[in-house]
Amino acid sequence: MTHYSEEMNRLKETILAMASHAESAVARAMRALVERDDALALKVEADDTIIDQFEIEVDDLSIHLLTKAPLATDLRFITAVMKISQNLERVGDEGCSIARRAHDLNAEPQLKPYIDLPRMAQMAHGMLHDALTAFIEGKPELALTVIPRDKEVDALNRQLHRELSSFMVENPATITRCLHLMVISKCLERIADHATNIAEDAVYLYEAKDIRHSAQKNQ
Amino acid sequence: MTHYSEEMNRLKETILAMASHAESAVARAMRALVERDDALALKVEADDTIIDQFEIEVDDLSIHLLTKAPLATDLRFITAVMKISQNLERVGDEGCSIARRAHDLNAEPQLKPYIDLPRMAQMAHGMLHDALTAFIEGKPELALTVIPRDKEVDALNRQLHRELSSFMVENPATITRCLHLMVISKCLERIADHATNIAEDAVYLYEAKDIRHSAQKNQ
Repeated sequence: MTHYSEEMNRLKETILAMASHAESAVARAMRALVERDDALALKVEADDTIIDQFEIEVDDLSIHLLTKAPLATDLRFITAVMKISQNLERVGDEGCSIARRAHDLNAEPQLKPYIDLPRMAQMAHGMLHDALTAFIEGKPELALTVIPRDKEVDALNRQLHRELSSFMVENPATITRCLHLMVISKCLERIADHATNIAEDAVYLYEAKDIRHSAQKNQ
Repeated sequence: MTHYSEEMNRLKETILAMASHAESAVARAMRALVERDDALALKVEADDTIIDQFEIEVDDLSIHLLTKAPLATDLRFITAVMKISQNLERVGDEGCSIARRAHDLNAEPQLKPYIDLPRMAQMAHGMLHDALTAFIEGKPELALTVIPRDKEVDALNRQLHRELSSFMVENPATITRCLHLMVISKCLERIADHATNIAEDAVYLYEAKDIRHSAQKNQ
């Protein structure tokens, strides 16, 4: 194995490790919410620096590899990794926002059992996981299954937003808690957006077809 | 002038044109809000495809130029352009969100005169403009002035959020309108975040110093 391909493998491993930290941040923030675990919420916030460091490492490795990339397909792969790293860094930030709101919510009585939010989190997690697998393993057909799922998460977010709005009107005492829940719902919706961006990058890379901003998104 | 440097100039011109469309989307969305101009709000949403097309054009030009970039500094410049384009595309999306909420708000009586939101918009616009000038004209010292301004926009967003929360508790009939205004405030706060990302890229590029996720941000 040449030195170059070893370094390309290192880049892949680094972006996968970064993804696993970002996924874990979201999963733990949701657990902090559902299990009302404050210590866990604080841990998620503290661990965000690890994901931030990964972003810097991915950029440095990528710039270094761009100077030696022999093929145009390699250039495309490396620049896609840099974009994905930016998306994962934001997934980590969304995880932190969820953790902060979980912390605030844990200080007050729980409004009702959490059903929709864990469901949205599970959907967003599945999208992120499939988008990354598609990207790393070169499976554009898997990436294409991610894109329509974004609409489902959007719909759940809108539905929850409507329900919480009515709840606030009926019980003004719940307004602060409802606002926290709306923010968490929006965070999950944005994580699904980041997964969609990654899936679009995978399709672009392997099918040389740019489906960003196309009708495909509106399936 | 060689062919390569002509193409580099074209890349710079393209990212500047994209930036001017993104800035204009936000400025027009804010005008649609303040002047209660529904037609303008719809125009902003329709024009988002222009910004989306710019993102594709910037990526294609960048990938093409990466295959011929002679120096590591050029590689860094080109990959920074790709990241900035992703940020500008999102600024355009935030402009659309503001336009949509302006449209919804225009259907109801105005709550109160808009003072804080136009001020936040002006601050975010100034940050975006300075970050791009710093990037294109190679002025890291200008980029460094952008970063602390993000905290001011964050503080304004939090203050407005608090005010609107109290308003909702006191007047539940205003809840829907207050929620729209909170979303607009958050959109402006995110535009300032994108400007900060661009400023950080400019500092990294010209001072070879990675200030993302460092104490500098918390000045």
